[in-house]
Amino acid sequence: MINVKENENLSILNHSCAHMLAQAVKRIYPNALFWVGPVIEEGFYYDIDLGDKVITEDDLETISKEMKKIVKEDKLIKRMELSKSEALAMFKNNPYKIELIENMNDNEVISAYTQGEFIDLCRGPHIKNTKLLKHFKLLKVSGAYYKGDSKNKVLQRIYGICFETEEDLNKHLEELEDRKNRDHRKIGKDLKIFMSHDLVGQGLPLWLPNGAYIFDTLERYIKDKELKLGYKHVYTPCMATSDLYKISGHWDHYKDDMFPVMEREGEEFVLRPMNCPHHMLVYKNELHSYKDLPIRIGELAHDFRFEASGAVCGIERVRTFCQNDAHLFVTLKQIEEEFGKVVNLILDVYKDFNIKPDSFRLSLRDPMDKEKYFQDDEMWEKAENTLRKVLDDLGIEYNEAVGEAAFYGPKLDVQIKTAIGHELTLSTCQLDFLLPERFDLTYIDSDGSKKRPVVLHRAILGSIDRFIAYLLEVTKGAFPLWLSPVEVNIIPVNNNYHLEYASKLKQLLIDNNIRVELDSREEKLGYKMRESWSKKIPYTLVIGDKERDQNKISYRKHGSEETITLNIDDFLGLLKEEENSKKMN
Amino acid sequence: MINVKENENLSILNHSCAHMLAQAVKRIYPNALFWVGPVIEEGFYYDIDLGDKVITEDDLETISKEMKKIVKEDKLIKRMELSKSEALAMFKNNPYKIELIENMNDNEVISAYTQGEFIDLCRGPHIKNTKLLKHFKLLKVSGAYYKGDSKNKVLQRIYGICFETEEDLNKHLEELEDRKNRDHRKIGKDLKIFMSHDLVGQGLPLWLPNGAYIFDTLERYIKDKELKLGYKHVYTPCMATSDLYKISGHWDHYKDDMFPVMEREGEEFVLRPMNCPHHMLVYKNELHSYKDLPIRIGELAHDFRFEASGAVCGIERVRTFCQNDAHLFVTLKQIEEEFGKVVNLILDVYKDFNIKPDSFRLSLRDPMDKEKYFQDDEMWEKAENTLRKVLDDLGIEYNEAVGEAAFYGPKLDVQIKTAIGHELTLSTCQLDFLLPERFDLTYIDSDGSKKRPVVLHRAILGSIDRFIAYLLEVTKGAFPLWLSPVEVNIIPVNNNYHLEYASKLKQLLIDNNIRVELDSREEKLGYKMRESWSKKIPYTLVIGDKERDQNKISYRKHGSEETITLNIDDFLGLLKEEENSKKMN
Repeated sequence: MINVKENENLSILNHSCAHMLAQAVKRIYPNALFWVGPVIEEGFYYDIDLGDKVITEDDLETISKEMKKIVKEDKLIKRMELSKSEALAMFKNNPYKIELIENMNDNEVISAYTQGEFIDLCRGPHIKNTKLLKHFKLLKVSGAYYKGDSKNKVLQRIYGICFETEEDLNKHLEELEDRKNRDHRKIGKDLKIFMSHDLVGQGLPLWLPNGAYIFDTLERYIKDKELKLGYKHVYTPCMATSDLYKISGHWDHYKDDMFPVMEREGEEFVLRPMNCPHHMLVYKNELHSYKDLPIRIGELAHDFRFEASGAVCGIERVRTFCQNDAHLFVTLKQIEEEFGKVVNLILDVYKDFNIKPDSFRLSLRDPMDKEKYFQDDEMWEKAENTLRKVLDDLGIEYNEAVGEAAFYGPKLDVQIKTAIGHELTLSTCQLDFLLPERFDLTYIDSDGSKKRPVVLHRAILGSIDRFIAYLLEVTKGAFPLWLSPVEVNIIPVNNNYHLEYASKLKQLLIDNNIRVELDSREEKLGYKMRESWSKKIPYTLVIGDKERDQNKISYRKHGSEETITLNIDDFLGLLKEEENSKKMN
Repeated sequence: MINVKENENLSILNHSCAHMLAQAVKRIYPNALFWVGPVIEEGFYYDIDLGDKVITEDDLETISKEMKKIVKEDKLIKRMELSKSEALAMFKNNPYKIELIENMNDNEVISAYTQGEFIDLCRGPHIKNTKLLKHFKLLKVSGAYYKGDSKNKVLQRIYGICFETEEDLNKHLEELEDRKNRDHRKIGKDLKIFMSHDLVGQGLPLWLPNGAYIFDTLERYIKDKELKLGYKHVYTPCMATSDLYKISGHWDHYKDDMFPVMEREGEEFVLRPMNCPHHMLVYKNELHSYKDLPIRIGELAHDFRFEASGAVCGIERVRTFCQNDAHLFVTLKQIEEEFGKVVNLILDVYKDFNIKPDSFRLSLRDPMDKEKYFQDDEMWEKAENTLRKVLDDLGIEYNEAVGEAAFYGPKLDVQIKTAIGHELTLSTCQLDFLLPERFDLTYIDSDGSKKRPVVLHRAILGSIDRFIAYLLEVTKGAFPLWLSPVEVNIIPVNNNYHLEYASKLKQLLIDNNIRVELDSREEKLGYKMRESWSKKIPYTLVIGDKERDQNKISYRKHGSEETITLNIDDFLGLLKEEENSKKMN
């Protein structure tokens, strides 16, 4: 998605368009007073005092027409320069502009721009004439407190964007529409994936049956992958005494991001922001020999972070989430092999979900920074070189970010771009030399001596919650078969004649572990098919005379207009094959 | 298990035995000073001041021998009565007894009992002679603060028990041994099911991989049962704002059992003690027609209760647990059918786990109690009669507990006895007329009018945590195949000759989704087999020449000494059949 602010030509164009908007508003509402009209990433806006008038969608249409008129009038846009006193005189009827002028230096040259009857204070630059502003669109209007202070008056903020060509504008508007349709909050609501409620609280979504199915299935998916790779899953409580986090060091670094302490009967409990400390205790619960290593402890772990209420967003940024977490306890020599296995697991999972990573980022220490990083040159160099070697051997292109390593060790972050263009870290693998120290973790080496293991923190799907947000945006809710809460929807053409056969079919599919629904409501066929489509159910079966008499099924796949008729066994085979392939649409 | 305090004969016997213990101690430690020696449920103890001497297991043996001597001496036990001044004179060398005497009334007749050279202050009664104390056992010794105050001196507390016959004593000792072996905390530790740690906190167990497997498998088991019965599972956050519990009414009734409030940025969050309110919100998230009902919302839900630190116990009584919970939203007419289905599900699950309920308890309102119960005679009578009818129709014997119903409706509790004799409520189904009221839940009836649904709260396995504690005690950790974290343990007779074949076998079993371990350590065969036994792995495979050369396996089942040799395919078939049968051992 375009960033207007970062494009100089577009910046000038949009700034000029803000003036044209103001000019049109002034023509329609002669008493309008203007505050500021800046360029933003998404185009421009103008804050306008219209008294008690609240701008509606219809008004936007009217303003837009007036702006088109001004385009046709092809006004010349001219710069003029004023002294402070001249400016004060010129804008004497607008207290907002007066305030701006009064805050300027006495000796400053103040510039303004005119186009026809309209004049506005402005640093510029602007384009030459209004004809060049033809390809604009007013996007929305909202109330905005003057200077953002809720004690002040509410101004009308009108948003718009302008491009050099009609083509660019249309492309952008399509992208906006697509983004709206991909917004996981909208899809999540439409498809009954999750809900939220003020009584539960912000950033604490409730997963509805459809969402809970997806959640559960992803958990099972990644756990099965991990089991095959020798991971052992634990399940540890989502809280601990605050002492645990004092020992781990999180208390100092992370306290402000945690929920408040619960104190009772002299004990201090806190909801955990991450589960590394719990896993350290699991490791420490037994004596370990070098023969036992590597030990891979995994957990679909529920963690809690007090995100600012302004930052929470659907299921993407929440206050409680489920990490696809694991901690690998390894010897120094095993780092290379284990890190390689983690990277391979990442690549394997991305293949299943058809994820193309945006970049692999290797975060290293800044050797000059003697404050942030613990001092052991040899260990850092060895560790960093090991990670480089693994990535090189796998032929992975990566960039190095010096000074971006955590204080406890170097790490790999895999960045992806979401369908609506957000960049996020999906997977991560971090070396940690410090936590084993803090928890005094040991193993007995082959020579009988006590050694310190190294810890690899890793997450593959990141948080399951955010991963589902990502999937919702990629697929627009049309999940692959294995992740679809309902795989098949059966619609009898006429309940009187086809319901019996449809019901038998339903039971047959249930017996074959297919997630199936039967829509026997007394509604029109077309209505039911449209609804099945909008619920994004992969297979919609329409059952009429032919299907019943020939003991067959006819289906339409979501996204296709083609109807295909099959024997029941062939259909079951098709479903099983597609389900097992776990392939994305 | 016997309760000595509740049996008069045994009480006298044990009290007398405490005196004999003291007499023996006095002979061995002439400076011993005696405090009190009461009868308790489990027998008796005596608190003794032995200066710095700490009694060991060996000392117990010596004391026991001396007691047996006193039995043989067949001392006559005689009562004597003293005035306070006589008593003070007689016990002048024992400050503990002096303290007891000084606290008595001046006119009280003070009794003491003698047996040979020993005399002790005592109310009695006692048995006639020491010969009758033959069948005793000293059980353990521990330190005990004088008067239970940690600022006081530590006395030696010796525990014992005495029976009338050798047979009774042996039976009791066997029961004690069995109870010790069944203690889920011991088994849980031995089999690495769970651990706990002070840094995490009391009542907050960490499930180790073996326990997490069992947990996960039980969740999957009950969810699959529920799915087939039309339940929809949700997954809701384990906290909410305190307002939610003010609306539900839990705040008034339950606040003291909850973790403290977390307050931040003007919001008050609490960990939930139960998840009913969340499920009410899920129901309320959509409009419902009578055609949609019953709606069955299930969740393996994590709840939190602040159990007193003295009450927490292993995984049986914890501060965070996972409820096998569901809420059914039904019309009045549907109560009968839905309640019946819940009872059938309970019976079905009990059959799988071979659980014989101790009793079905139907808790009803007390119609005289106008305070506790909401007033709607017709509704109560109808509801109670419906529950009775269902149980009668199913031929279930039950007892009625008038006045035991919750204030919001009648309920059924299914009581079971654990293997060590504890009684607990495993399953429950409660009618609730009130919560739908508080959350203003409605559905549109066939005539277009708004109606209030009734809620059935129900739990089948109760909390998964406590259910696993129950299973550990019943099975002593020898789980049925489908619940065993490791199903098969392969031991090559000699790594040099049999490891290759054993490894192939392992991979074959993995490919067939069998949970398998290969013990290739350089240890003796007998040692590895004993360890496999003590880990309670269902099938131990011993792989030698014969198995390798004939492409077969030989196994021993846990609990059996018999070795059976089979073709691999037959063995796989046997495993699959046993796994699918889900039968208990």
